[in-house]
Amino acid sequence: MILSALLTSVGINLGLCFLFFTLYSILRKQPGNIHVYAPRLVAEGKSQRTNHFNLDRLLPSAGWVTRAWQPSEEDLLSTSGLDAVVFMRIFIFSLRVFTFAGIIGVFILLPINYLGNQLSIDFSDLPNKSLDSFSISNVDNGSNRLWIHFSAAYVFTGVVCYLLYFEYSYISSKRIAWFYHSKPQPHQFTILVSGIPVSSGSRVGESVESFFTKYHPSTYLSHTVVRRTNKLQKVIDDAEKLYRTLGHLKSKRHTQQRFRRDGFLGLSGRRVDLLDQYEKKLEDLEDNLRMEQSSLAGEEVRAAFVSFKSRFGAAIALHIQQGIDPTEWVTERAPEPQDVYWPFFSASFLKRWICKLVFVVAYILLTVSFLIPVVIVQGLTHLDQLEVWFPFLRGVLTITFVSQVITGYLPSLILQLFLSLVPPIMIIFSSMQGYISFSKIQKSACTKMLWFTIWNIFFANVLSGSVLYQVNIILEPKEIPKILAEVVPAQASFFIAYVVTSGWTSLSSEIFRMFPLICSFVKQHFTGNDGEEFQVPSIPYHKEIPTILFFGLLGVTYFFLAPLILPFLLVYFCLAYIVYRNQLLNVFAPKYETGGKFWPIVHNSTIFSLVLMHIIAIGIFGLKKLPLASSLTIPLPVLTLLFNEFCRKRFLPIFRDYSAECLINKDREDQRDPTMVEFRDKLVTAYQDPALKPIQYSGSIGRLKSPLLHSAVA
Amino acid sequence: MILSALLTSVGINLGLCFLFFTLYSILRKQPGNIHVYAPRLVAEGKSQRTNHFNLDRLLPSAGWVTRAWQPSEEDLLSTSGLDAVVFMRIFIFSLRVFTFAGIIGVFILLPINYLGNQLSIDFSDLPNKSLDSFSISNVDNGSNRLWIHFSAAYVFTGVVCYLLYFEYSYISSKRIAWFYHSKPQPHQFTILVSGIPVSSGSRVGESVESFFTKYHPSTYLSHTVVRRTNKLQKVIDDAEKLYRTLGHLKSKRHTQQRFRRDGFLGLSGRRVDLLDQYEKKLEDLEDNLRMEQSSLAGEEVRAAFVSFKSRFGAAIALHIQQGIDPTEWVTERAPEPQDVYWPFFSASFLKRWICKLVFVVAYILLTVSFLIPVVIVQGLTHLDQLEVWFPFLRGVLTITFVSQVITGYLPSLILQLFLSLVPPIMIIFSSMQGYISFSKIQKSACTKMLWFTIWNIFFANVLSGSVLYQVNIILEPKEIPKILAEVVPAQASFFIAYVVTSGWTSLSSEIFRMFPLICSFVKQHFTGNDGEEFQVPSIPYHKEIPTILFFGLLGVTYFFLAPLILPFLLVYFCLAYIVYRNQLLNVFAPKYETGGKFWPIVHNSTIFSLVLMHIIAIGIFGLKKLPLASSLTIPLPVLTLLFNEFCRKRFLPIFRDYSAECLINKDREDQRDPTMVEFRDKLVTAYQDPALKPIQYSGSIGRLKSPLLHSAVA
Repeated sequence: MILSALLTSVGINLGLCFLFFTLYSILRKQPGNIHVYAPRLVAEGKSQRTNHFNLDRLLPSAGWVTRAWQPSEEDLLSTSGLDAVVFMRIFIFSLRVFTFAGIIGVFILLPINYLGNQLSIDFSDLPNKSLDSFSISNVDNGSNRLWIHFSAAYVFTGVVCYLLYFEYSYISSKRIAWFYHSKPQPHQFTILVSGIPVSSGSRVGESVESFFTKYHPSTYLSHTVVRRTNKLQKVIDDAEKLYRTLGHLKSKRHTQQRFRRDGFLGLSGRRVDLLDQYEKKLEDLEDNLRMEQSSLAGEEVRAAFVSFKSRFGAAIALHIQQGIDPTEWVTERAPEPQDVYWPFFSASFLKRWICKLVFVVAYILLTVSFLIPVVIVQGLTHLDQLEVWFPFLRGVLTITFVSQVITGYLPSLILQLFLSLVPPIMIIFSSMQGYISFSKIQKSACTKMLWFTIWNIFFANVLSGSVLYQVNIILEPKEIPKILAEVVPAQASFFIAYVVTSGWTSLSSEIFRMFPLICSFVKQHFTGNDGEEFQVPSIPYHKEIPTILFFGLLGVTYFFLAPLILPFLLVYFCLAYIVYRNQLLNVFAPKYETGGKFWPIVHNSTIFSLVLMHIIAIGIFGLKKLPLASSLTIPLPVLTLLFNEFCRKRFLPIFRDYSAECLINKDREDQRDPTMVEFRDKLVTAYQDPALKPIQYSGSIGRLKSPLLHSAVA
Repeated sequence: MILSALLTSVGINLGLCFLFFTLYSILRKQPGNIHVYAPRLVAEGKSQRTNHFNLDRLLPSAGWVTRAWQPSEEDLLSTSGLDAVVFMRIFIFSLRVFTFAGIIGVFILLPINYLGNQLSIDFSDLPNKSLDSFSISNVDNGSNRLWIHFSAAYVFTGVVCYLLYFEYSYISSKRIAWFYHSKPQPHQFTILVSGIPVSSGSRVGESVESFFTKYHPSTYLSHTVVRRTNKLQKVIDDAEKLYRTLGHLKSKRHTQQRFRRDGFLGLSGRRVDLLDQYEKKLEDLEDNLRMEQSSLAGEEVRAAFVSFKSRFGAAIALHIQQGIDPTEWVTERAPEPQDVYWPFFSASFLKRWICKLVFVVAYILLTVSFLIPVVIVQGLTHLDQLEVWFPFLRGVLTITFVSQVITGYLPSLILQLFLSLVPPIMIIFSSMQGYISFSKIQKSACTKMLWFTIWNIFFANVLSGSVLYQVNIILEPKEIPKILAEVVPAQASFFIAYVVTSGWTSLSSEIFRMFPLICSFVKQHFTGNDGEEFQVPSIPYHKEIPTILFFGLLGVTYFFLAPLILPFLLVYFCLAYIVYRNQLLNVFAPKYETGGKFWPIVHNSTIFSLVLMHIIAIGIFGLKKLPLASSLTIPLPVLTLLFNEFCRKRFLPIFRDYSAECLINKDREDQRDPTMVEFRDKLVTAYQDPALKPIQYSGSIGRLKSPLLHSAVA
């Protein structure tokens, strides 16, 4: 790619971003869009719909930037929870890393690269200069200037490791402080026990009761046996749907302002009949449901939520193997009640294990077979290749603008499109794998997405997309540095374009919320829905975090290869910081709280990026005929991995569990709390399956919030 | 190697074994050797020295075989502990596996191999037939007979997995039953806490006391702070030595029956002076020691043994992270008091971690550099190579007997010699790695030795010993099956000879106890020591288990390649069963009890052998032009690894820890035990460093047993 193609791409994207941000600043002020751009504020009652018109509503403004900037981390913590704070720390960490990298890269490495003569390109014509002349490929073989790159790699690794340590330690302390300040919550007192052995003739509940009263007499409080409610859930969903339609119809009869829309549908004549008919149907369904609830209650799963009187009591039962047979009485931490993923609740130890294996294999297969679209996309950056394949395109491709758009913009857009299909698939895989909570499903999907992205975007692109070639690289480990050193710098221009197109565009589409906006528009204008029935979305960490981390990986690996990528990344992270802050404050409401458990993924990904960078460095210095530098780089990945190992020992346990010290202190604090008696009463029923809770629709028409606590994640 | 060379080797070794066993059956009846052949019985007072002469003493007999055969497993459990039972189960398991393998191998695979024509060797001259004609190499390429080998691999894997499962389950139940029947022991109630944070001005003991009384008020009993006693230990050793000499001199003055030996030494004139002089010196040393004990007591290490009132209480503190910082208040299970390895007690978290890393690297370096002697030994089996290197040997090597001895016997003997140096080195490495007990050191050394043996004997031999070649094989995983399939069958004759020489000889030297016999002889006849002062040896598991497992690996990998190895292995395991039973009953006394924790090593090693066999099978079927069989073998290692994963989940936790159910039941049993009060009093001082215990030699001359509880392992 030449410089002018990059500039075209930057220009298009800057324009698009500017357009989207301007549109956003106007559209967000329209009262009809309040459910799209501030659903969270509406749900919390902080935002009131004002219908009076003023000119200010039509002018773009940057006030939202200031409002997103202002709240402190403490404010964010109190409104959006620790997970949101940790999410924002990714940007702060990345900004620190890439500001440092940017200074070194642009002011030291870039001039050195540009002054090299290896690629011997004409000096005069800057716009037509290949981007490769800004990369390390342009430095002369055996040149002593490469020692500057070598030092930069060491210094950069040191700085990143220091920042990683600092962040890990900061978030650890945040997590502990957050735990100390948390109110008593059911999941802190509860564990999930599966593989409960049941003697013939007795029931699961009896078995649990007798086991825990025998072995934990002083701390055991209560239990809730898990039941299979898939069928029941279907009936409830039907009732729910009916109830909503009914509520909708009723509200229309009383509110006069919606007449306009009624006429639009042409249903005004049959309105009352329909209402009565629906109410009758709903009552029938409810009777049906109550009968099913009592008859299906017998379908017990050999698993139960067991609650204890203290957090420490729950921790004891959690950490010590309970039964003699390790496959029985298997304990795990209970998720928050609203976080439990009820639909897939397979209790058998063996079944869960097999499911896990099957879906890990499925994940690997998907990751590998996804290469096919990537290969096609990769073809677009090699125009000559494309011309060979599709000769009829030759005429079009000679037009400069078309070829620039195709090489600079289209590939990333198509990749983006394919990629957007993957996160939901990963969620399905993770949920099938047998995780019991949305948070765990999302965390697992996040890791899956991360490796998927790294493999399918980074490796598939640099390795020319040939599946066979990729398999070969795993099987010849000693060749890896050499191969990577050859192919990674060659793809620098693709990834710079990728940051500009995919990165910047993803942010503007994130803030613009195109899809919800269209949905809301269609709802309001065609179905007559006034938007009062809506769900506050939760942030899809499994989609966002891998994307952000992937840009981090690009920055780290290309830091000394092609420092030209760094300014574009810095722009991305600055924009992302503001955009996501805005979204967290206005749009997304937390559905659950993991207490910062996403951070270790960020840490691991950064360590992986560093080691990848080192491996490429080893190869590059070898290729550049500087074998001494190549050998001297070898300690760098070793030291980085040792540092990682140290962090794993020093911080990771904090993210897994709370220590006895924390738990006991918190328990003692509770003893002085008079509300604990009330809390314990609630605790007993906290983990009841929502499908088994008594349901009463017919009398309660008019309520807006659904009686069901759970909803889909993605 | 040709058949006659193998037969020569078998002949020599059978003769040697017969000789050693005969000598053993005579020598063991001599009263002077009772400390060599039955030290355990002497220590337990079960064997009395009878000096009256009868003819029977000079005749070889097989009575010891019957006596070793008779005791049941229960008897062995009560006299030698669970570890000894588990050790014997290795032989029972191996006998079962190789009886089955032997039947299939010798009666089905061997004839098929022999009837092949691939190597086209003359059929008539059996003694000069190469051993290769009994191996799979002789089967015709593409022959359908290979499907029998294929089926044999599947059936054999199935049987081995079934037996593995059965053994794991059997030993697990034994372990739990053994725990239920055990008396209260200090290590069940105690944990070792390291990384204790100490605020300035306070002492470690105070910190421990305040932490555990705060967080475990109901279960905490007492603590013993660990102290650095290396210097003190040296003084004690000196005193100990002096005390022994003194005791020895004294006993000689009073017992009249030792006059014969006194005259031999010619020291009778100065006897009394020496005694007084020594006693004076010992008293001085003791004063010195007491002073040092009080002055050095301040050198506290930031670690302490913390005892609890119940086993469950100890388990709670063990399994739940105690402090907020995971590198502080690090808990681990306390070893038995006599099992604690005091000399190396590094308490800092970072120091222990670095030590571990350093010695793992040292271990890898040793394993690799050990190849040099192996290469030389390997040269001996290639006579032609040897003649090229040392032309002057040509004359000698043409003599048939010499060349047969060199190819059949010498290589394994030299290997054996080098290998005997390795176990002590592994013990040193493991102890430097920071393990806190002899049992852990031995377990770690056992694993180290196992991989060392597999790598240096198996892989170094099959891969022609070239270091470079071996590094290449790691770096080209896809070539592994092909390379192994080429080289492993070629070394069949070497390993058959190895089983016969190294295996059989090691057993006869084990029972004959050459080295202790010589030591005892020298002591009795030259130093005038009457043998009353002796230590009962403990079985060096780290040396024995890897050897036995290595023979198992040979049997499993060569099972379908060269079934001729199986009868020799069966002989080995039969002999070993009797020999080790005899040694366990008469010679070795258990120094500590791990409760069968060595079994997982056996399990893993067998799984590794199976997978190695499968990989070779994949390669062999490929080489033999039967690609379908090669592909159909691929599920076999996958299934085996899944089986292993299942076993890890099903059984391994039992070997790591006891479940809450076990611990609480056992604790409740204790509550009815009136001796518990007394036991708890003892518990408080159980973990005092022996170097800090009050020492009183001067008044107690005449006692035979040392006041020190600990002694070297190897």
